[in-house]
Amino acid sequence: MTELAAVKAALRTQAVETPSWAYGNSGTRFKVFAQQGVPRTPREKLADAAKVHEFTGAAPTVALHIPWDRVDDYAALAGYAEDHGVRLGTINSNTFQDDDYRLGSVCHPEAAVRRKAVDHLLECVDIMDATGSRDLKLWFADGTNYPGQDDIRARQDRLAQALAQVYARLGDGQRMLLEYKLFEPAFYTTDVPDWGTAYAHCLKLGPQAQVVVDTGHHAPGTNIEFIVATLLREGRLGAFDFNSRFYADDDLMVGAADPFQLFRIMYEVVRGGGFTADVAFMLDQCHNIEAKIPAIIRSVMNVQEATAKALLVDRGALAAAQAAGDVLEANAVLMDAYNTDVRPLLAEVREESGLDPDPLGAYRRSGWAEKIVADRVGGLQAGWGA
Amino acid sequence: MTELAAVKAALRTQAVETPSWAYGNSGTRFKVFAQQGVPRTPREKLADAAKVHEFTGAAPTVALHIPWDRVDDYAALAGYAEDHGVRLGTINSNTFQDDDYRLGSVCHPEAAVRRKAVDHLLECVDIMDATGSRDLKLWFADGTNYPGQDDIRARQDRLAQALAQVYARLGDGQRMLLEYKLFEPAFYTTDVPDWGTAYAHCLKLGPQAQVVVDTGHHAPGTNIEFIVATLLREGRLGAFDFNSRFYADDDLMVGAADPFQLFRIMYEVVRGGGFTADVAFMLDQCHNIEAKIPAIIRSVMNVQEATAKALLVDRGALAAAQAAGDVLEANAVLMDAYNTDVRPLLAEVREESGLDPDPLGAYRRSGWAEKIVADRVGGLQAGWGA
Amino acid sequence: MTELAAVKAALRTQAVETPSWAYGNSGTRFKVFAQQGVPRTPREKLADAAKVHEFTGAAPTVALHIPWDRVDDYAALAGYAEDHGVRLGTINSNTFQDDDYRLGSVCHPEAAVRRKAVDHLLECVDIMDATGSRDLKLWFADGTNYPGQDDIRARQDRLAQALAQVYARLGDGQRMLLEYKLFEPAFYTTDVPDWGTAYAHCLKLGPQAQVVVDTGHHAPGTNIEFIVATLLREGRLGAFDFNSRFYADDDLMVGAADPFQLFRIMYEVVRGGGFTADVAFMLDQCHNIEAKIPAIIRSVMNVQEATAKALLVDRGALAAAQAAGDVLEANAVLMDAYNTDVRPLLAEVREESGLDPDPLGAYRRSGWAEKIVADRVGGLQAGWGA
Amino acid sequence: MTELAAVKAALRTQAVETPSWAYGNSGTRFKVFAQQGVPRTPREKLADAAKVHEFTGAAPTVALHIPWDRVDDYAALAGYAEDHGVRLGTINSNTFQDDDYRLGSVCHPEAAVRRKAVDHLLECVDIMDATGSRDLKLWFADGTNYPGQDDIRARQDRLAQALAQVYARLGDGQRMLLEYKLFEPAFYTTDVPDWGTAYAHCLKLGPQAQVVVDTGHHAPGTNIEFIVATLLREGRLGAFDFNSRFYADDDLMVGAADPFQLFRIMYEVVRGGGFTADVAFMLDQCHNIEAKIPAIIRSVMNVQEATAKALLVDRGALAAAQAAGDVLEANAVLMDAYNTDVRPLLAEVREESGLDPDPLGAYRRSGWAEKIVADRVGGLQAGWGA
Repeated sequence: MTELAAVKAALRTQAVETPSWAYGNSGTRFKVFAQQGVPRTPREKLADAAKVHEFTGAAPTVALHIPWDRVDDYAALAGYAEDHGVRLGTINSNTFQDDDYRLGSVCHPEAAVRRKAVDHLLECVDIMDATGSRDLKLWFADGTNYPGQDDIRARQDRLAQALAQVYARLGDGQRMLLEYKLFEPAFYTTDVPDWGTAYAHCLKLGPQAQVVVDTGHHAPGTNIEFIVATLLREGRLGAFDFNSRFYADDDLMVGAADPFQLFRIMYEVVRGGGFTADVAFMLDQCHNIEAKIPAIIRSVMNVQEATAKALLVDRGALAAAQAAGDVLEANAVLMDAYNTDVRPLLAEVREESGLDPDPLGAYRRSGWAEKIVADRVGGLQAGWGA
Repeated sequence: MTELAAVKAALRTQAVETPSWAYGNSGTRFKVFAQQGVPRTPREKLADAAKVHEFTGAAPTVALHIPWDRVDDYAALAGYAEDHGVRLGTINSNTFQDDDYRLGSVCHPEAAVRRKAVDHLLECVDIMDATGSRDLKLWFADGTNYPGQDDIRARQDRLAQALAQVYARLGDGQRMLLEYKLFEPAFYTTDVPDWGTAYAHCLKLGPQAQVVVDTGHHAPGTNIEFIVATLLREGRLGAFDFNSRFYADDDLMVGAADPFQLFRIMYEVVRGGGFTADVAFMLDQCHNIEAKIPAIIRSVMNVQEATAKALLVDRGALAAAQAAGDVLEANAVLMDAYNTDVRPLLAEVREESGLDPDPLGAYRRSGWAEKIVADRVGGLQAGWGA
Repeated sequence: MTELAAVKAALRTQAVETPSWAYGNSGTRFKVFAQQGVPRTPREKLADAAKVHEFTGAAPTVALHIPWDRVDDYAALAGYAEDHGVRLGTINSNTFQDDDYRLGSVCHPEAAVRRKAVDHLLECVDIMDATGSRDLKLWFADGTNYPGQDDIRARQDRLAQALAQVYARLGDGQRMLLEYKLFEPAFYTTDVPDWGTAYAHCLKLGPQAQVVVDTGHHAPGTNIEFIVATLLREGRLGAFDFNSRFYADDDLMVGAADPFQLFRIMYEVVRGGGFTADVAFMLDQCHNIEAKIPAIIRSVMNVQEATAKALLVDRGALAAAQAAGDVLEANAVLMDAYNTDVRPLLAEVREESGLDPDPLGAYRRSGWAEKIVADRVGGLQAGWGA
Repeated sequence: MTELAAVKAALRTQAVETPSWAYGNSGTRFKVFAQQGVPRTPREKLADAAKVHEFTGAAPTVALHIPWDRVDDYAALAGYAEDHGVRLGTINSNTFQDDDYRLGSVCHPEAAVRRKAVDHLLECVDIMDATGSRDLKLWFADGTNYPGQDDIRARQDRLAQALAQVYARLGDGQRMLLEYKLFEPAFYTTDVPDWGTAYAHCLKLGPQAQVVVDTGHHAPGTNIEFIVATLLREGRLGAFDFNSRFYADDDLMVGAADPFQLFRIMYEVVRGGGFTADVAFMLDQCHNIEAKIPAIIRSVMNVQEATAKALLVDRGALAAAQAAGDVLEANAVLMDAYNTDVRPLLAEVREESGLDPDPLGAYRRSGWAEKIVADRVGGLQAGWGA
């Protein structure tokens, strides 16, 4: 058994960034079900995020999405966040919700549309300067729906050119995180469909360009932990967008669909040095039918549980069994950690940090859910189409 | 070679129903891109559908979707359609866009919600009586997003009960078409996820209950033509919802992603007697980024081309090769038909029917596209969220 | 919490049938790696299986595969098994390893080959009479590799005819278990590819025909527990072939790839009354690179652990949360059971039954592995192609 | 329309390498069905391959597989080939069929096994020197079956080290082609599972290291033509292993499962300059149930037909429609080429080259099939496990 104190210490340092948009309404193409008490402003989102951090102690930063979280004064927004005990985190761009982007943004056949998209990305870096954010996260909905619709290779050239312009604008200590996704909203080609494409672009850009692994963005059967191990080995794993999926990019709570997979991913993070290095853990989820704040608390806890199990792997015993070629024993060492019930350990960690051992119970007892339902009446609720 | 005259005769009889909603705006959860000239009313949708039939001669009926196409006077709507050269077709229900349906409709844990959903379905049968429609097409978005969320089996019991109530209301000559779908919008369980489930329910209901095969609703790797052959053998193939997909339920133009698969499906229809029997051919597509009317014309033509190839299969030679166990020759007979360029044949069939041999060109030259852009200004465009 | 005594009592009754072929050599199309000490005869397989039962107390029966386990005197073989503490179980047919079966067996285009296949199946029923086996498990490799190769529908007719002949031969208390599989070894069509096809055939045959769910035989993304719930609701779930997979029919140890899925399956079994009814739990695995007997012991334990967790679900709390539409709480109730470490409970159950709490350790200490390596020298090891 | 003479000229230059092992017996893990007349020696394989070239004029080289095609005198073998009108081509290594490779070859935890594997690869380069082959094709079956079995990252280190040793041994003008594969025979991790991994290794090795795209080695839903376009853009597409699949690595005849996909791939090759550059077109197929030589002739023809259609794409019209953002017209330009029946064009090309316009018919009439059945009696037929 790895020394327990070290495990606890590691768990105490873990931070999971929550996304502002997960507090707003979301849905499928068929329907967005509105929920009561949903935030109407960036500040209300931050207030909700602060509650997640208050009860988990593990969600100290909040990712913003531009333009959904556009405000006049980002310094004031940052101050508001800090007053509530959290900080502003990653800036996420949006180049998919303007009518101009029907055929793409940075890969669009028309130069004017590409220029508009790049301008938006540069604006995001301006916002990073104002908020003090380290990371710019880029996800492009760019792609095509029909064979022949556009030239696959020319689109790569346009993409490379746009990324280079934005990369050149990054300040010291700022990073560009490039996300890949198999499909959706494009249904034939996607311009950054897999880790290889994102990696190839990052290589050319430079060391401040890193790959984001969204756990819901792969083809069926893809071994995600292999990608994690490979990107860590290459020094190119910048961040995770955590969520879970049974089919496509379902954006369910992380750990809800395949907790064993999440554990295996976290084990590769730990083993590859990603737990202490600059790998950002972020959630990117949609709580379409369940209550949003408790779903996010639960998600943070799920990441913690998977991490605790990963930290508990007896790496000496594992290495010995692997070296001996003992397939069953090596597997057993890993499963022994996975099968451990780490909830008591995490309760202890929380109590030692002055937190309630039961974050969900504490949230429920806090009355926040009732308060926001009562307070947030009128106005336009935040949502994806805001 | 099958006698060409018979092939032409068969092609002349083929009818593909177009769905009213395909003429309106649609999109993904990320964005609906509005297009100019899109209809604002059921009548404007019918007018567009009439153009598709005018130029293809193969789209004589239009499926309605309730409530999107709800009107006060269905007889008047039917008259309007007939004045434009088309007829009202299948009635499609909608039990997924009301806030009450967050956790399901006919499978919802609360009896009141189930009652509301069943009432809607019964209303649809009333509308069928008014429109003279033969078919009620049922697709349920019901399902769950998380393990444990609801009881899988109890939901089946509720589903069976609701279907029985609606089936009992059907008049002579009316049919219930039950559609299955692997996932979306539900992400963990779907209450009618596969043909087996739809078939089992139809069996218990009676002969007027039939299964709908939507070509985009299967797991990766599913052999759709096998399902078609099996349902025809069981006498339970009621209809197709045609579209195409690369990944999930992409709802692209039929024949755009895998034209060989469409040919194989049509071959099983022909071989299984489905071409002359009561199998309804319908489109169910979303034209998110392409012009809608020409996309629908193209889709009808794609179905015709696949059908023509299927009709051209030399079934005598195929049967002989199959009986002889000659794998390569049997495959070659099928491929010979598939590799034939049937566009000249279809051009002939059109000309012999007094149509332009080039439906897309004829549509473009007709000026309809320009006219609707000029005329349909102001008002609310039709769309999924109508 | 469900009353613990009842859970323990249920666990004590659980029986997992192990397959004789899992004790022999197996591999992929690329290579079969031989292992030392592998059985050379049916009796040696039974001796190994008896060890699994000796240390788990949960594997009292052994499935045979004909012709791999063909002997002159089945009564003697049964006696040998009983002398070693186990019994003969399900009879598995083989209609895929004779050169005549290149294009299929019961679905072959030639009547003579179909006759040969049916004769083999009838022989298997004869063997059941001799061994006292209840179940005949039928898996057909039948299918086609190329479009057009054979007539999909005619093959269904041939299949139905063969099944009817075998069904008619079943004695009272004997069952036919029909297994489905998406693909492999056939690569275009498979004649029983999904549960719907198996179910449709069983319905026509009669109540002694039941469906087998092999957990590795589905398309990516298939919700297996839904199928389990549905088949139980229809009274047609006859048996499981347990194993696990990441990609295709990988035949890894059950519970090794997705233990949460196994738990969800076992929950549906418990919830649907399948734990006490006539649902046979069987392993169908290949231990290509790992030691075979300990892999089978581990597999039995994995099934027990998933079952224990399923039995621990607080069904009252779950039903209450489901009825209230509380998505997160309902999910939490299920996860609470899953996250429980049930290994101490199973250790207790074993000790209370006079077993070693650690079956794998006890097996290792027993010296059996060393003994069979020393003893089983010379002769032909058992394997799939035997 | 691209000028027809240029299209014909391009088609006349196309060469498809056939693999020696496709002439031998193959099968699945369930059964290898032996066929009459199958070669027993490398020379007999070459004689069969020469027939494919004789009738297609498009298969001038033959890939060897070591050790299956190991001979004492490679110069003599090369002379034999040339006497029959073909040349020796790519050398394929085999590090998966020795008992030592149970847990891997170049990634094995034991240094001695890795050394043995590297020695084999170096031997293959020696053979290349003797045969004058340009390309060494490396496919590794390396991987793991169970989580924890071995260290994912350490295996990458071992792989990199082995590849570097072999790369250093390459002579001028020799290339290393690295193949990736999603899974099989390994079922949990594969050490080179995707193009990104192969690409990352090739980048580090140098310009003589290139990626091989086997069309059957991807996850469901992967857009292969995107990978082709990307690798060509990166200058790292070394070769194709053509075949087709419906499910996994089915190794069916290329073009048999999704001819439209093959066309899209060939279009990207043409568009990306791969048709004239150093991209090798090779078959890698298994003819388990169909006659081998005609299946290979058919496969070569299928590649030619897809290529002809790709060459016929009106690239000027396509570029114009793409630039205009006309989704339907751009798709229509591509489909127009695909829907063309190119068989008459290819018949012309053949006749102009002095070949029979119908290669399959000519082969059948040649009597070769009957001759080899009569001649090749006795001896051990070639096969995968040879």
